[in-house]
Amino acid sequence: MNESEIRQNKATKQWVIYAPYRGKRPRDFSARKRRKILSVIDKDCPFCPGNENKLPPIIMETHGNNRYNWQTRVVPNKYPALMPHGDTSRFTKGIYLTLKGYGRHEVIIESPFHNQHINEMSNDDIRIIIETYHKRYVDLMKEHDNMMTIIFRNHGILAGTSLLHPHSQIIVTEIVPIHIRWREEVAQRFYDEWGRCVYCDILEFEIKNRQRIIMENESFLAFIPFAAEVPFELWILPKKHDADFGSISDKEKEDFSIILRETLGRLYEKLNDPDYNYIINTSAKYRSDEPQLHWYLQIRPRLITQAGFEIGSGISINPSIPEEDAIFLKK
Amino acid sequence: MNESEIRQNKATKQWVIYAPYRGKRPRDFSARKRRKILSVIDKDCPFCPGNENKLPPIIMETHGNNRYNWQTRVVPNKYPALMPHGDTSRFTKGIYLTLKGYGRHEVIIESPFHNQHINEMSNDDIRIIIETYHKRYVDLMKEHDNMMTIIFRNHGILAGTSLLHPHSQIIVTEIVPIHIRWREEVAQRFYDEWGRCVYCDILEFEIKNRQRIIMENESFLAFIPFAAEVPFELWILPKKHDADFGSISDKEKEDFSIILRETLGRLYEKLNDPDYNYIINTSAKYRSDEPQLHWYLQIRPRLITQAGFEIGSGISINPSIPEEDAIFLKK
Repeated sequence: MNESEIRQNKATKQWVIYAPYRGKRPRDFSARKRRKILSVIDKDCPFCPGNENKLPPIIMETHGNNRYNWQTRVVPNKYPALMPHGDTSRFTKGIYLTLKGYGRHEVIIESPFHNQHINEMSNDDIRIIIETYHKRYVDLMKEHDNMMTIIFRNHGILAGTSLLHPHSQIIVTEIVPIHIRWREEVAQRFYDEWGRCVYCDILEFEIKNRQRIIMENESFLAFIPFAAEVPFELWILPKKHDADFGSISDKEKEDFSIILRETLGRLYEKLNDPDYNYIINTSAKYRSDEPQLHWYLQIRPRLITQAGFEIGSGISINPSIPEEDAIFLKK
Repeated sequence: MNESEIRQNKATKQWVIYAPYRGKRPRDFSARKRRKILSVIDKDCPFCPGNENKLPPIIMETHGNNRYNWQTRVVPNKYPALMPHGDTSRFTKGIYLTLKGYGRHEVIIESPFHNQHINEMSNDDIRIIIETYHKRYVDLMKEHDNMMTIIFRNHGILAGTSLLHPHSQIIVTEIVPIHIRWREEVAQRFYDEWGRCVYCDILEFEIKNRQRIIMENESFLAFIPFAAEVPFELWILPKKHDADFGSISDKEKEDFSIILRETLGRLYEKLNDPDYNYIINTSAKYRSDEPQLHWYLQIRPRLITQAGFEIGSGISINPSIPEEDAIFLKK
């Protein structure tokens, strides 16, 4: 493909421009950065063992096969975007709508070891992280005012991380943004027309087509979406239809750990440890049984910069072709 | 304000979380970067006088008061996201929708001088840039397949620029993305309820309220929106209701140049030349007479990184309070 192409994301109706001849290809970026060597335990890191005095009160912890008495920990974010108390009623300031910043903002410390890359962990280590996500997700969504939970991981400076110790975050809000409602609406319209979930449709097509698949196991498919917004965007989609991450089974947790570890490992090896964000996209409250929604994990490497055109139009320009990215990651 | 707050953008219905105690304040970033000194003319820069052999054929140029025979130039982008030829019909690839990358991608060279900052230019220089935008905008929108024009400027590496010579860009597409349709829909609903343009409503309120205004002249208001998505986001809104940038009058071009220059100058001085994107948000084709739409210029400094939560939820987290940002820029 040496002409540009414009593709539509079937699940969001967003358009993406593919301009493969445009400037540097992302794989050329792969050698641009070397991380500095980190020590196993950092005496200044609040997430490291022995520094519990720097840590807010621990919400939960799990135990694993290591020399410390914990494997993962959940703590409140010390600089939270939202506060777990206060009034959720909405009011106006002049002509504008506003509310107090009620919500939760927690950190999942993924390992006692400061320098442990998620893709250097064992499948068991990752499974414990997934179980921690799941436990916290289920508990938080039980609470009355919590309408939406976003579980995400920022890896590297370009992805917005400030602490190097391996960790993820959970933010829970009482508002449901248009971004989520829009995704629901597209899925709803598709369901009303075709009588099935658009994500199940994508899943079936990708498994048959095979051009964009990175890997697959019994419960999950990892692939580059047809209209990937950025180079090497990856979706890990459960094969069983389910709107809600909260419904993940034990077998799925196991399979999810394996595919997540291998997928992140592939990015690490092939792109020399790129910065990335990943997000678990799951249903908002009261939508967990909907036949048109389907949870998935989305990985977005930070290899290119979104500029004025993207801000003004909402259209991404991707210099990388999904099918070629898939070949590159697989070979 | 030392608690977080969640505000809604009245014109897009997007929510923004304000977390003022969260990490570093953007004004602390202001000394982090010094640009290297550039020469007046760079012998390797394709946009500099004398290097016309490195430039694609010039589409238009204007003349100004300098030692060269041109002031601004419009040229095709050498690495275009879209191509000005080819078929615009849409087709499917399996279950997905796609089309060839038809469109325009042009560069506006803003000055012959390699090192001339836009905020070091005279009002006349800026007026000529605005006139160049306008002329090209009007000509491009006359062509049959052009549905939407985005004029934008990427300033600095963090904003996605690759060439330092002062320039803006124009991208024209045959598709109208949901991002634009959504803004139209919110404005339409507001109009259907209140019988007026939501931007006129905002304009009237901001002029009365005065808390977020940076500067003002006869034709324009420059202010930080109530629900600014990033620190020091700025809108320059024409006071006369008009959906279409193409309708700007000569007097408005004059006033627009003055307020744009002063606003960018304020960012430059107060935040030590931050990277930024600016975009002219204007109506898509066939919407230029609509009573509910209103064009404006949006400036987004790149002082913070959008991370996993923003990608997953579409909600921005802004560590900076619009009213405080306004005071900081004005003092």
